[in-house]
Amino acid sequence: MKTPIITLLTDFGTKDHYAASMKGVILGINPRCRLVDISHQVTPHDIGEGAFLLANAYSCFPKGTIHLAVVDPGVGSPRKPVLIVTKNYCFLGPDNGLFSLALQREKVEQIIELTRPRFFRSVVSTTFHGRDLFAPVAGHLSLGVKPRSFGPRLDSCTTLDLGKPRVKWKKLMGQVIHIDTFGNLVSNISQEQFFRFTGNRPFLVHVGKWTIGSLSEGYWQGEGAEPLAIMGSGEFLEISIREKSAERVLRAKRGDPVSVEIVPGC
Amino acid sequence: MKTPIITLLTDFGTKDHYAASMKGVILGINPRCRLVDISHQVTPHDIGEGAFLLANAYSCFPKGTIHLAVVDPGVGSPRKPVLIVTKNYCFLGPDNGLFSLALQREKVEQIIELTRPRFFRSVVSTTFHGRDLFAPVAGHLSLGVKPRSFGPRLDSCTTLDLGKPRVKWKKLMGQVIHIDTFGNLVSNISQEQFFRFTGNRPFLVHVGKWTIGSLSEGYWQGEGAEPLAIMGSGEFLEISIREKSAERVLRAKRGDPVSVEIVPGC
Amino acid sequence: MKTPIITLLTDFGTKDHYAASMKGVILGINPRCRLVDISHQVTPHDIGEGAFLLANAYSCFPKGTIHLAVVDPGVGSPRKPVLIVTKNYCFLGPDNGLFSLALQREKVEQIIELTRPRFFRSVVSTTFHGRDLFAPVAGHLSLGVKPRSFGPRLDSCTTLDLGKPRVKWKKLMGQVIHIDTFGNLVSNISQEQFFRFTGNRPFLVHVGKWTIGSLSEGYWQGEGAEPLAIMGSGEFLEISIREKSAERVLRAKRGDPVSVEIVPGC
Repeated sequence: MKTPIITLLTDFGTKDHYAASMKGVILGINPRCRLVDISHQVTPHDIGEGAFLLANAYSCFPKGTIHLAVVDPGVGSPRKPVLIVTKNYCFLGPDNGLFSLALQREKVEQIIELTRPRFFRSVVSTTFHGRDLFAPVAGHLSLGVKPRSFGPRLDSCTTLDLGKPRVKWKKLMGQVIHIDTFGNLVSNISQEQFFRFTGNRPFLVHVGKWTIGSLSEGYWQGEGAEPLAIMGSGEFLEISIREKSAERVLRAKRGDPVSVEIVPGC
Repeated sequence: MKTPIITLLTDFGTKDHYAASMKGVILGINPRCRLVDISHQVTPHDIGEGAFLLANAYSCFPKGTIHLAVVDPGVGSPRKPVLIVTKNYCFLGPDNGLFSLALQREKVEQIIELTRPRFFRSVVSTTFHGRDLFAPVAGHLSLGVKPRSFGPRLDSCTTLDLGKPRVKWKKLMGQVIHIDTFGNLVSNISQEQFFRFTGNRPFLVHVGKWTIGSLSEGYWQGEGAEPLAIMGSGEFLEISIREKSAERVLRAKRGDPVSVEIVPGC
Repeated sequence: MKTPIITLLTDFGTKDHYAASMKGVILGINPRCRLVDISHQVTPHDIGEGAFLLANAYSCFPKGTIHLAVVDPGVGSPRKPVLIVTKNYCFLGPDNGLFSLALQREKVEQIIELTRPRFFRSVVSTTFHGRDLFAPVAGHLSLGVKPRSFGPRLDSCTTLDLGKPRVKWKKLMGQVIHIDTFGNLVSNISQEQFFRFTGNRPFLVHVGKWTIGSLSEGYWQGEGAEPLAIMGSGEFLEISIREKSAERVLRAKRGDPVSVEIVPGC
């Protein structure tokens, strides 16, 4: 029998006992589960950041992995707890858009509202559904309980508007959607959009007061504090500085505009 | 054969190699162990905080789990290394009060002083008993070695005075004992104490210069920067602000008084 | 069949999805692997710090453990990806000196350059070899693929000059090479060097403007803010202050000199 894998993504931090409590509950139901943390350091209540991190990691895991994600400012409110089954994965968490980005690349098969208390902890708090509702459902799901057993089907789930790049005044206008540990600025301009827009023509990438005229192949290519444009490992256009933090050097922040234009005359 | 679970709680941080060293030692003795971190980010030397986090997480784990906890400012001193066996769990660590809060809810069966060097690493440093003494004992314990094999029985273990709420001037006087990642202020007023004190009468909760006149059901209920009183997931009275940090907004810190009084005339 | 253990050490941080992506890839190849984090909080691009943490943890793990380490400012550049097989362990990562300190105590059997794309992910990014190259190789290695299958042998690997203590003006001159979570200052003066230099003679340890005349046995021995010299758990001379941060009290930083001299006249 295969060992089930459950990943966890939350904004609970790593200091508190919250993530561990969820793991204890899961292991109490299915001690054979493999538990892997994606991140517990999503900025508190930042659904968009959680969606970004999940979208970048989920597909590295083998088929059948259960992705349990709890960034849930509305815990205890009428927002629905859901299980989303796609061709390759299961996603479990609050229906608040946290799965939007991952689902853009997945074929959704069913969306189930989690309503059956027999799969929850005996007492469900109003403030910690991660431990009392989502963790036990993940445990039971990993034991092979059928998705439909957890509740009725829904027709759709919440989609987060994370802003897509647009073409305006002949520019491809995007923005910084994530700044990583190294200070790399990840934009929402995908590899596919970038190359469709630029074709084989010379281009300029603009970020703040900086202009970059070519794509670099790796972080190691720059000199000094020169910003580089790189097609990052998540297949989005990224601004980086060799062995430095582009965030700090360029004083950038999430939401800052990043744009691409064709060299005038080309 | 069941897979043994060992949890780890320390003040070692997650940057250094300390926690990993303990895990390596355990896996060298019993490669079948499941290792789960509760927290390695207890404030250095803060036994009370460690006790709080452990008490909030331990009972989520299945019966038989070994809870290994090392917040140990007296490492190498005459303080005793102990194994505490309760009806449902084993607790391993220094006898300095770290287990006090968890043990309030557990039925203690035996307390063993760890004195048998054959269960330790061959050389025991004076500064890292987590790796050299507690981790190997945890490994052997998980293999089924009987508690009594590790050393003689003790009659009692150290209890930490973490301060209990008192009734004074007709008020239930408690304090903030933990501030979590979200900035929620967790008090030491338990659900049971709260309801015993208030009965069905209208009440006021005081924290700093703020007064709150009712319990909210969830973090999502507040408006703006209004503080909420909530019965938290650990069954303690908690002060929170919707999608904000109560710590920051109220400029609160651990030890700040939280009190409850009955509305005068009721 | 034994459960293979893979440890991970990176400078990827714990907030981003990077470490989790590596784990997903490994589990997709070998779902039976045990994954243990050594640290993901190496200071970005700090190969020396990574080498120090790895050297202090690796030998706690059982024989056969695969140590996967990625602190890799030159990712995508001509620096070589390598597998280093020693008598007891396998080390996998960039050939940039990251394994220098660990290898000082290991008997190296083979060094292999990783060149066979059939063991990599189908598309290898230029910026994330941890996920696309090292993780899959670790997965295959844990399944029993022979080291020679991954590429040709190399004669040597890069050694990092991390500075060794020297005897000068009758002093043993070393420096602070690591400051841990507690603020303990770990020097590069090893236990063996220290005792060879001091013999049985009285000595003085100098750090900043402080002088310490004896070794303490544990952190618990000091009084007030008095700095202690301790032979630490990694067998290096360490400067500590009881329940305080020596880093903060002494305003110390990595690279600060630590020296030992024999008491004049002895």
